[in-house]
Amino acid sequence: MEKIEHIGIAVNSVEEAEKLFTALLGKSPYKQEIVEKDGVLTSFYQIGESKIELLIATSPESPIRKYLDNKGPGIHHIAFGTSNVQAELDRLAGEGFQLIDKAPRPGADGKRVAFLHPKSTGGVLVELCEDDPNAQ
Amino acid sequence: MEKIEHIGIAVNSVEEAEKLFTALLGKSPYKQEIVEKDGVLTSFYQIGESKIELLIATSPESPIRKYLDNKGPGIHHIAFGTSNVQAELDRLAGEGFQLIDKAPRPGADGKRVAFLHPKSTGGVLVELCEDDPNAQ
Repeated sequence: MEKIEHIGIAVNSVEEAEKLFTALLGKSPYKQEIVEKDGVLTSFYQIGESKIELLIATSPESPIRKYLDNKGPGIHHIAFGTSNVQAELDRLAGEGFQLIDKAPRPGADGKRVAFLHPKSTGGVLVELCEDDPNAQ
Repeated sequence: MEKIEHIGIAVNSVEEAEKLFTALLGKSPYKQEIVEKDGVLTSFYQIGESKIELLIATSPESPIRKYLDNKGPGIHHIAFGTSNVQAELDRLAGEGFQLIDKAPRPGADGKRVAFLHPKSTGGVLVELCEDDPNAQ
């Protein structure tokens, strides 16, 4: 793991959350992006080498909607940047970690991503990210 | 806010959590430090320009003990690095954020720190950190 790529924060309203985080961080988000497959609208802020990713549900079936209903808004996951997600997944499976994704898949902001199950990571939802060479 | 200084993760057992995060991150913690006033043992991993801070309660009255009892282990807070915590506190108070600490106080790992109340930050416990010139 080379850096904290981003911290994902589940929020109810994109307008209210962008107003709040723009005031908190003293800067504006640099992009919004919908990830249809995950039922989520994302909004990104750059902070040093890392990002804050706001997560807003786009449907009642969205995992973020379910998270908000169960736990309320707050920190949802931590994403680590690595040059090779598949190699890290293979290493972590060998260490006994439970994989949600057995191979990287397209994520937001030009990344290929995979998640580990929080049951095997001390209650922390962990994402691994690498740059997607095919991203636009 | 210049970078993500660290992510605080509440855990039940330092031995089990260090074993788990050493396997996850592929590296060992670089220090342990007790912060008596906060009732917490900390263990730090460096990841790029940021750190992972494991938080273990050292007494039944520790806020971390209460957090674990209420919510279980997981991501506890996000800490942003800045060159001047007091200036940021003053700016954020003016923006309507609720301060837990009105001035920076000594924290772990050679920092002066202050917290914002999660009620005013979308459910996210936010810490601000600056280097403590008097730290050993």
